[in-house]
Amino acid sequence: MQSTHLREHNLSVVMRAVATATEPISRATLARSTQLTKPTVSKLVEELISAGLVEEHAPVSQGSGRPMVPLQPAKGTVLGIGLEIAAEHISCLGIDLAGRQLSSHTEYLRVDADTVEETARACARLVEQVRADAPRATLVGVCAAVPGRMSPDGQSVLAAPNLDWTEVPLGRELARTPQLDGVPVQVHNDIRLSVLTEIARRPEQSFMYVRGSTGVGGAIVLDGTVLDGVHGWAGEFGHTVVEPGGALCRCGRRGCLEAYISYHALRERAGLRTDVLIDELVEELSRSTDRAEVIGTIGRSLGLALANALNILDLSTVVLSGYLGPIAGEIAPFIRETVERHALAAEVDEVVIERSDDLEAPALWGAARAAIGPILDSPGAWIARTAEMAG
Amino acid sequence: MQSTHLREHNLSVVMRAVATATEPISRATLARSTQLTKPTVSKLVEELISAGLVEEHAPVSQGSGRPMVPLQPAKGTVLGIGLEIAAEHISCLGIDLAGRQLSSHTEYLRVDADTVEETARACARLVEQVRADAPRATLVGVCAAVPGRMSPDGQSVLAAPNLDWTEVPLGRELARTPQLDGVPVQVHNDIRLSVLTEIARRPEQSFMYVRGSTGVGGAIVLDGTVLDGVHGWAGEFGHTVVEPGGALCRCGRRGCLEAYISYHALRERAGLRTDVLIDELVEELSRSTDRAEVIGTIGRSLGLALANALNILDLSTVVLSGYLGPIAGEIAPFIRETVERHALAAEVDEVVIERSDDLEAPALWGAARAAIGPILDSPGAWIARTAEMAG
Repeated sequence: MQSTHLREHNLSVVMRAVATATEPISRATLARSTQLTKPTVSKLVEELISAGLVEEHAPVSQGSGRPMVPLQPAKGTVLGIGLEIAAEHISCLGIDLAGRQLSSHTEYLRVDADTVEETARACARLVEQVRADAPRATLVGVCAAVPGRMSPDGQSVLAAPNLDWTEVPLGRELARTPQLDGVPVQVHNDIRLSVLTEIARRPEQSFMYVRGSTGVGGAIVLDGTVLDGVHGWAGEFGHTVVEPGGALCRCGRRGCLEAYISYHALRERAGLRTDVLIDELVEELSRSTDRAEVIGTIGRSLGLALANALNILDLSTVVLSGYLGPIAGEIAPFIRETVERHALAAEVDEVVIERSDDLEAPALWGAARAAIGPILDSPGAWIARTAEMAG
Repeated sequence: MQSTHLREHNLSVVMRAVATATEPISRATLARSTQLTKPTVSKLVEELISAGLVEEHAPVSQGSGRPMVPLQPAKGTVLGIGLEIAAEHISCLGIDLAGRQLSSHTEYLRVDADTVEETARACARLVEQVRADAPRATLVGVCAAVPGRMSPDGQSVLAAPNLDWTEVPLGRELARTPQLDGVPVQVHNDIRLSVLTEIARRPEQSFMYVRGSTGVGGAIVLDGTVLDGVHGWAGEFGHTVVEPGGALCRCGRRGCLEAYISYHALRERAGLRTDVLIDELVEELSRSTDRAEVIGTIGRSLGLALANALNILDLSTVVLSGYLGPIAGEIAPFIRETVERHALAAEVDEVVIERSDDLEAPALWGAARAAIGPILDSPGAWIARTAEMAG
């Protein structure tokens, strides 16, 4: 028993080390970084190579020593599929272990309370198309990103206001479609998936991630892992109180951060039209005569919520994403002033405020990464299952 | 290499399982709970018994099966020493692996900025007395509890207002005394040590711990482990803002929780004499005519700080200690009302608000437990070191 456990554990340690390395890595470097012996590493690497999870490149000469054989995650062998469900379209992306896009499709439809089954069927069709584009890759699983709060068991969407969804059993609906029969399906909140894209850029780091969108969401990352909390909702900065008894929030509470800095709140505060897109919000805000005031409000409100969170978590890095990314430079001085006034950590270290270099669709990419995740966590189980299916 | 790592790991898993079991545990139960094989568990247990870390009790008959041999942490074999440094006294406690008190001494002296060396010497004398009382137990280490913020390296006290200490290198001062020469010495914040006493009562649980004292401190416990943060300051609820621009706090900031509910703030708010002891605060408050208002203020201020923390951490249990413990029942309705108004988690689960059944001196006991900690974390290293010293 014990040795099987150990082998599984070591396989995943080596797989993860190859997957997170910023450049091709040798067996010798792997042995150093994983603290395993070289013979053990070589044996595990052979196993990962023959399972199609790792690939070798041409040996590189290194002066007098033996040539170094660079290892990388295998290309095109396995397929993780991400879905992103938005109010007016569904996007689907297939990636391989190397993080390369194998295929991508989008279907436009109105997603709302009346179209749940239709949405599930559209998702299944998109998955089918992506699979057809990568016929040689073995499907690992599918993960859907939803702009809403999930039930603690991860199967139902409790509330997704932009989709007008309340208690939608999306996991069950997806599993019912013929195309997804027997396929592992996950459903997650879109912001918790977006942050996976940021973690890939900052492996092993600890930071607070705040994403400005129609609402304001966030996540807490400790040593490269997203903090879940009891219900999977940790990092909900949006409903942190920044002004007791203050502005009415769309959630019905008063004084929430979201009531001051969400897309909806900002649009109304700046007197913009209702058809302004989030992507255009910053530009539209900059046309308004009260732009300085709007920027100051965003920075100070966000600064207070962040100062409180920093005191509780004792973190020193904040990453701003969504519409907050492009204006990070402008709001940073206001955030910094408020954070320095209230956060203990700011007494000894400068709090780092950075913008996320968002990909076009971080939640979609995060969903695809999450779909690949089980291979990194337990390549041994994957190898056993594929051997069983083949035999 | 690997098998040594594994043995060390398994030794600590078994040691910890014996130490945290609520009653004597058999080898068979250990095998089930640790997922190790029975022969492996038996071998590891023998090693822990011969090292004096675990002891066997008389076999207990269990009907038709083989009699069960109960195992417990060994009594009186090793000694962990805790120190608690307060403004007018230093307490010292020696415990064994079973958590039994072996000896305890207190010395009364004025601890302030001018008496740092004298304080270190008094600590060393107390340690000497406790060791003399338990001559057969091997000293593991010493841990001192200080009512202040520690430097991130854990060696200096950055600020301990009640001791009038600023940047005091206490670790170095203690290590300099002849009695502590070569002894592993740790120094920690008193609240981070108090919470260890609470964790011992709630193994593996996640909760927020808030301690009301001259200030307001706290800690976050995730699955039985205290969250450190970047500087070791995570859980600093006291300087969470509950009223932007509000009351002036002793730290110089405005609107901190501590400015509303610390001993100092409450004493002034209730118009009490300056010589009221913290232990008497609740009783004195109850004599005041504005008692209901004071209780309401404490509950609502604390409730807002907790609601924000709950949204960020997604926890569902709060433990109140210090002077907040005895009034937990009275302030809970006000906390609950505020938390339910603002915390997302309260939508699906009731937030549990409990009082800590504080021991007389939770920081002192926590310090002694922290001194014992290295044995639970790595009994293998301890066994190797004692074998080396003996041979």
